[in-house]
Amino acid sequence: MSPKYVYFFGNGSADGGSGMKHLLGGKGANLAEMTNLGIPVPPGFTITTEVCDAYYKNNKQYPGGLAQELEKNLSRLEKLMGAKLGDPNNPLLVSVRSGAAASMPGMMDTVLNLGLTPDAVTGLIKKTGNERFVWDAYRRFITMFGDVVMGVERHYFEEILDKYKKKTRVKSDTGLTSDQLKKIVEEFKSVYKKKTGENFPTDPKVQLRKAIDAVFASWNNQRAIKYRQLYEIKGLIGTAVNIQAMVFGNMGTSSATGVCFTRNPATGENKFYGEFLVNAQGEDVVAGIRTPEPIANLGKEMPDIYKQLVEYKNILENHFKDVQDIEFTIQENRLFMLQTRTGKRTAKAAIKFAVDMTKEGLIDKKTAISRIDPSQLDQLLHPTFDPKAKKEVIATGLPASPGAATGKVVFNAEDAEKLAEKKEKVILVRKETSPEDIGGMHASKGVLTTRGGMTSHAAVVARGMGKCCVAGCGALQIDYKSQTFTVNGKVVKKGEYISIDGSTGEVMLGQVSTIEPGLSGDFAILMEWADEVRKLKVRANADTSADAKKAREFGAEGIGLCRTEHMFFGENRIDSVRQMILYAPDIKNLKAKIAALEKELAKAANSKTSDIKKELMQARQELKEPLKLYTSSLKKLLPMQRRDFEQIFTAMNGLPVTIRLLDPPLHEFLPQEEYNQKEMARQMKISLKEVQDKVSALHELNPMLGHRGCRLGITYPEIYDMQIQAIIEAACTVKKKGVSVYPEIMLPIISTEQEFSILRDEVQRVAKDVMQKKGMQIKYMVGTMIELPRAALIADKIAKHAEFFSFGTNDLTQMTFGFSRDDVGSFVPEYIEKGILEKDPFQVLDQEGTGQLVDIGIKNGRSTRPGLKVGICGEHGGNPQTISFCHKVGMDYVSCSPFRVPIARLAAAQASSEQPVSQATV
Amino acid sequence: MSPKYVYFFGNGSADGGSGMKHLLGGKGANLAEMTNLGIPVPPGFTITTEVCDAYYKNNKQYPGGLAQELEKNLSRLEKLMGAKLGDPNNPLLVSVRSGAAASMPGMMDTVLNLGLTPDAVTGLIKKTGNERFVWDAYRRFITMFGDVVMGVERHYFEEILDKYKKKTRVKSDTGLTSDQLKKIVEEFKSVYKKKTGENFPTDPKVQLRKAIDAVFASWNNQRAIKYRQLYEIKGLIGTAVNIQAMVFGNMGTSSATGVCFTRNPATGENKFYGEFLVNAQGEDVVAGIRTPEPIANLGKEMPDIYKQLVEYKNILENHFKDVQDIEFTIQENRLFMLQTRTGKRTAKAAIKFAVDMTKEGLIDKKTAISRIDPSQLDQLLHPTFDPKAKKEVIATGLPASPGAATGKVVFNAEDAEKLAEKKEKVILVRKETSPEDIGGMHASKGVLTTRGGMTSHAAVVARGMGKCCVAGCGALQIDYKSQTFTVNGKVVKKGEYISIDGSTGEVMLGQVSTIEPGLSGDFAILMEWADEVRKLKVRANADTSADAKKAREFGAEGIGLCRTEHMFFGENRIDSVRQMILYAPDIKNLKAKIAALEKELAKAANSKTSDIKKELMQARQELKEPLKLYTSSLKKLLPMQRRDFEQIFTAMNGLPVTIRLLDPPLHEFLPQEEYNQKEMARQMKISLKEVQDKVSALHELNPMLGHRGCRLGITYPEIYDMQIQAIIEAACTVKKKGVSVYPEIMLPIISTEQEFSILRDEVQRVAKDVMQKKGMQIKYMVGTMIELPRAALIADKIAKHAEFFSFGTNDLTQMTFGFSRDDVGSFVPEYIEKGILEKDPFQVLDQEGTGQLVDIGIKNGRSTRPGLKVGICGEHGGNPQTISFCHKVGMDYVSCSPFRVPIARLAAAQASSEQPVSQATV
Repeated sequence: MSPKYVYFFGNGSADGGSGMKHLLGGKGANLAEMTNLGIPVPPGFTITTEVCDAYYKNNKQYPGGLAQELEKNLSRLEKLMGAKLGDPNNPLLVSVRSGAAASMPGMMDTVLNLGLTPDAVTGLIKKTGNERFVWDAYRRFITMFGDVVMGVERHYFEEILDKYKKKTRVKSDTGLTSDQLKKIVEEFKSVYKKKTGENFPTDPKVQLRKAIDAVFASWNNQRAIKYRQLYEIKGLIGTAVNIQAMVFGNMGTSSATGVCFTRNPATGENKFYGEFLVNAQGEDVVAGIRTPEPIANLGKEMPDIYKQLVEYKNILENHFKDVQDIEFTIQENRLFMLQTRTGKRTAKAAIKFAVDMTKEGLIDKKTAISRIDPSQLDQLLHPTFDPKAKKEVIATGLPASPGAATGKVVFNAEDAEKLAEKKEKVILVRKETSPEDIGGMHASKGVLTTRGGMTSHAAVVARGMGKCCVAGCGALQIDYKSQTFTVNGKVVKKGEYISIDGSTGEVMLGQVSTIEPGLSGDFAILMEWADEVRKLKVRANADTSADAKKAREFGAEGIGLCRTEHMFFGENRIDSVRQMILYAPDIKNLKAKIAALEKELAKAANSKTSDIKKELMQARQELKEPLKLYTSSLKKLLPMQRRDFEQIFTAMNGLPVTIRLLDPPLHEFLPQEEYNQKEMARQMKISLKEVQDKVSALHELNPMLGHRGCRLGITYPEIYDMQIQAIIEAACTVKKKGVSVYPEIMLPIISTEQEFSILRDEVQRVAKDVMQKKGMQIKYMVGTMIELPRAALIADKIAKHAEFFSFGTNDLTQMTFGFSRDDVGSFVPEYIEKGILEKDPFQVLDQEGTGQLVDIGIKNGRSTRPGLKVGICGEHGGNPQTISFCHKVGMDYVSCSPFRVPIARLAAAQASSEQPVSQATV
Repeated sequence: MSPKYVYFFGNGSADGGSGMKHLLGGKGANLAEMTNLGIPVPPGFTITTEVCDAYYKNNKQYPGGLAQELEKNLSRLEKLMGAKLGDPNNPLLVSVRSGAAASMPGMMDTVLNLGLTPDAVTGLIKKTGNERFVWDAYRRFITMFGDVVMGVERHYFEEILDKYKKKTRVKSDTGLTSDQLKKIVEEFKSVYKKKTGENFPTDPKVQLRKAIDAVFASWNNQRAIKYRQLYEIKGLIGTAVNIQAMVFGNMGTSSATGVCFTRNPATGENKFYGEFLVNAQGEDVVAGIRTPEPIANLGKEMPDIYKQLVEYKNILENHFKDVQDIEFTIQENRLFMLQTRTGKRTAKAAIKFAVDMTKEGLIDKKTAISRIDPSQLDQLLHPTFDPKAKKEVIATGLPASPGAATGKVVFNAEDAEKLAEKKEKVILVRKETSPEDIGGMHASKGVLTTRGGMTSHAAVVARGMGKCCVAGCGALQIDYKSQTFTVNGKVVKKGEYISIDGSTGEVMLGQVSTIEPGLSGDFAILMEWADEVRKLKVRANADTSADAKKAREFGAEGIGLCRTEHMFFGENRIDSVRQMILYAPDIKNLKAKIAALEKELAKAANSKTSDIKKELMQARQELKEPLKLYTSSLKKLLPMQRRDFEQIFTAMNGLPVTIRLLDPPLHEFLPQEEYNQKEMARQMKISLKEVQDKVSALHELNPMLGHRGCRLGITYPEIYDMQIQAIIEAACTVKKKGVSVYPEIMLPIISTEQEFSILRDEVQRVAKDVMQKKGMQIKYMVGTMIELPRAALIADKIAKHAEFFSFGTNDLTQMTFGFSRDDVGSFVPEYIEKGILEKDPFQVLDQEGTGQLVDIGIKNGRSTRPGLKVGICGEHGGNPQTISFCHKVGMDYVSCSPFRVPIARLAAAQASSEQPVSQATV
């Protein structure tokens, strides 16, 4: 027996129900459910998604038996309606709609009034006595059918309509007379013939067949495929087709059509919300030619109908236990419900819905948690532009760090800082940013770059700061010399105002007013519920005590990544850092040379030729000079670093703080531009050439794969020693003041077991020394980043020595793919477009490849150290999909930027509670 | 019962034998063996390596029972010799020598004449009646004991000796009288006391104990540890100590001492080889103060002894079945053998030994193969400097590509090419090389760079060309402006002669004469034997037909990597390449814009305002202009690429040729220096700014992780299409001429399944098209490089589409470690020194990490395609250790530079035959 292909609904009962979305699509399943609930729905039937599947699998042939089933259901519909397709006395008109299990704007939407033919026109005029209505319906049908089913572009029809309106000087379609519409129909038909090569079908069954074909064809059109890719819609077998008797909202003033939500989808308020138009068809509401009235007015205009509508919406919300988005039509004082579905909502509304409904007893806490799309919370954590404000968008880049910012354009960090001191708002505009720009970025309201992707330096740092950033805006051409940028011929000078939207990537001229975020009490309540459920801990990436405090406010349970290098750029530190770098690479040689000299001096000790001794001693003195400068630079840095750590430890009293030792290659701290190099030479009292030689000596072709991370710790041990000393000394100081301090010292870019064990010994040596001197004990841990494929592959060996792992998935993604996050902008967008990559792997962890290494790393690590603490501190730590993965592979915590902590708390809760996350958010 | 700690040998029988090297060390085991063979060896005993092991494990305490065993064996020795340690009438003197299972120059070597005390001196004078001999032996002993056992530097003693020689105006030690020597002994003793703080021991047992202590201590001194690391000596538990009765070669003209080889270790000739000194001790031969006589003279001077010696050396060679390096001493017409061991040999000799001995029936072919260290074959494949030539070494860099070259210094590729045209020999000296320099490198005899490591561009390309290269010679400072380089204050100008040795890294002033390599017939025979045994196929990496021919001569069975990008630099191609690059990035946008215009033109088709139409058409025309230039650049390149492939296919008639489509990022083809940019602007008829804008637009922060490989194929499909067309057209052309052609098209830098499937489809589409046009069928394969960790991790998915894998272990190593091969020079040497890395992972594949990914990749790949052909084409493909790994993990072939093909053939044979490779080569 072949499966059932068509499901009927009508007259109070239906073959299907809301549990059959996979087979009937969301729309069809809910029409059936409403029918079963006793809600008036125009009767009809649904062709299943399995037909679509079979159609594609069988070379675009429909399965045998479908034709008969269709015929049978059509007859049943005709009998129920007492009308027949194409009947010259009492014609049946139907709507044809696509509808998959997930909402998919990429597919064919709707054809209304199907069944209109010359015969049916005659019949409908007879039946309604409303000639104008019928011709209007006919011209609408031809347009829709031509456009949606046959691909004749809408403007061909609209041009004809406009011509008539102009000729008769009416402004609205409703001003056209029946005769005019009749002529328009004729012209529409001839356009249709010209464009399609065939006559407009006069057989309603041909119309129906073509419409069904078109729905199935639309399942695999470019837009639909793209849409499914974009929104990761998978596992669907096809679309269903819904054929439903037409009801008309445009049959005079006792008719109307409308759309409503059971609660307010913008604010979340529990108040019936919607709008309607009297004497109109659905498309008029959408087209926006006439302004619809608020739903409340319906209570005044048609009180009985309104009462019914309120009753139905209550039934639906109680039944579905979620806010419903409902379409309805009133035909001559009779109310019909045409659709119900979960209503899309703003983040604010989503939270209020979830909390209110839980309090009302409609849903439980776990369901409430599953109702919020975590990534949407961003909206609530950053300022946004006033949606009512006028915007002149001049370019669009990548939405790299959410928020809205307005300020004067500046082109370098110094100017940003100078203007910020004068309390001016500035936007820092750069080709790309580097660590030198940190101060300027801090001083700016927002950052705009022309190069780099979502994980470029600018993007990462801005997100960490919770600062708005638009990155990779290639349309802009910056000319640093003239201090201007040009975009599409428009020149913007330093000091002019622009506005940037880090959530959309838009760059706008002038000042656009912003709205500050408001965190309602419901938000806090929901977070508490999330905390009850989740198993993953949530930490924050924070480099300053200010960030640490903010993270704590947002609920962070520790710091998962404190980057010490950002501290190196602060205040007057950069000078000492540069002095250190100037000598670091030579220290080893110097020490060897001095040792050799000492030996010679020992030999010459008995020698009578004291000239030689003098010479040797002078040589030794000269060699010791740079050594002294190096040591003094480290001595200057020590107290500054110590103070940083004291502040952070104090802010995180009682919580763990993971501190990563110096990571970037040293050349990042040297000035790249000659002007700055001259400045450095002046301050260091050396020649410009010496500075440039050092810059050139430290230059790397691929700095991402260069002399960085623990490699610095191995080659220049003094630098790490200084940092370790600062950490332990700071811990001692604050402990004395009663602060509970849990430092976790983290080694970056480990690729071999030996690197780790050598440096771990070094940490223990220095720490022991400090603790002995202070006469105190500090409980600390030594662990590592796992950010190189090799580290994951040999994690069992590393875990013999390491007390914790933190996956640095930014670098791990770079190495696994061979992608430089700063350079992939030239092809990754095209890769996503072509479906080669589903998502930017720097935003959503690539579970197939990079994730495999994470899994291997955890399993290997715990094979030698079962209780190993494991977390993630890459940018991915704040991404909900990735958080779900982290939960699955058994991590202990995720760490993300302070502003994403609430998102991570929610995502972690959702991962724990295993409930599928609702997609019903906008 | 405790184990036996001491093994006696003497009087025709021994406790041990040559099978006990692990326990007795190489020297001890062979002394025992010789004793058992009836060869006269001065008797003695060996303290086992287990004692050394126990000593270190037990906090430098000797195991209980050792003292008694020592005492017992000493008594036995004294009885056998009829002499006693320290006896004032008939004293026994002994030598003390270290000796582990592997030869280790890092350890304590030898103390001779131990047992000399004031009493023993008296006794020895009585016994020998040769006062001068005794005092000479005493002063030698104090020096050796002081130096070797107590660490008193030798020069302290030598200064005293020199003083006496000056005073007495004698030139040689032998000129010193007995009395003088007596005084010298006194002075030696006081130096000894001053330096060690104690008197020179007068108890011979104390001497012996201290000497034994020193041997065991030397096992773990810095030099020995370093030596074991360097030569990967593992699994040894310690050193043995050999205590042996002294025999004296310096007891007059009937005494002598010598060293000999059973065959000539330099040429391999089967002729007794060696030298001796009459009236001398071993150290005199080594010191080189007197010139030893060739061994043949011994036949004239002491014919009976010589006959005996020949007899013993024959016994030894037949017994050990390998060439022996033998030490002997003649004491008053009695011959004693002091040591025998496998003789070190040159590559040439190693081959001749192996082939001759196989022919003689002494060994079999498999053993013959195992006797050659494959990496030593390099010596035979490149010119070398005449060892007799005088060399003034001014600096030493990395030995990046073997060979010897002499030529005039030039500082850029153009000058190299210009001078080479005039038949001048040149050495190209650069800070680093880039693809732009290929032509110049080809024209030069050798390449010298100041930056970059063993796998820098210069090194890799030079090795590929079989050209001598010294890389990373940081001591040189190049000044391009003045066309000079400076090293240690010495300035070398353009046009001056230098010589470089790519096998040692030495840079020399002036012209040093070279010896051309001579491949003897034995070499070919050995290669044939290797081919009979090996399972791995050996292919070559070759980009030109010249390289392909050379590879074939060396026995390559196909080309495993033909890099198409090197072809782009040839002749006048670079201009077309640059023209292509100028437009490639904009083509997609252009096409979209043109399509949009076409649409507008279609709309405007009916419009009467032909002005608009004209405007649109003109706009379209303007847009098409760059498109045309782009297409024409590809059209110009097509026939050139085709010709390349025709030549390579013809050279490799009957063998497969793997062609990798374009790999490097496009910016590598653009000029970086303003002078060249100007030139390009002139040729392209565009402004300098346009060129610079393009260079800047294509600039990448980490090009290794950038827009390269198949990413180019995806974003600029026209480039790959042109290459595919050229390959298939070339195959058709040569096939018509009767050439058997097997192209294998290889896609680089694949990281996702989709990249591969999209490009595989593209290859098939273009290939089908060409074959249809030509009316021919070409059998070709499409496969991929596995060079990114992600590719190995998802190899099962890629193998669904890919017909072969080639592991690109250069990139795979870079990504697995996060090492840029161009930048690791700043820390990898220190890593190796500190034992963090055993070897440079770019030279020897890191089996622990990178190898794990190779293994995963092969297993994954064959899980979905069981017969998948797998090879390696990274630089590692020519490294013997890596080849052994490739054999183990089940690869089908290795591919390496043509000059390493014989090495790979041998290494592959050794991998198959499982016999351990002999270490006895120099």
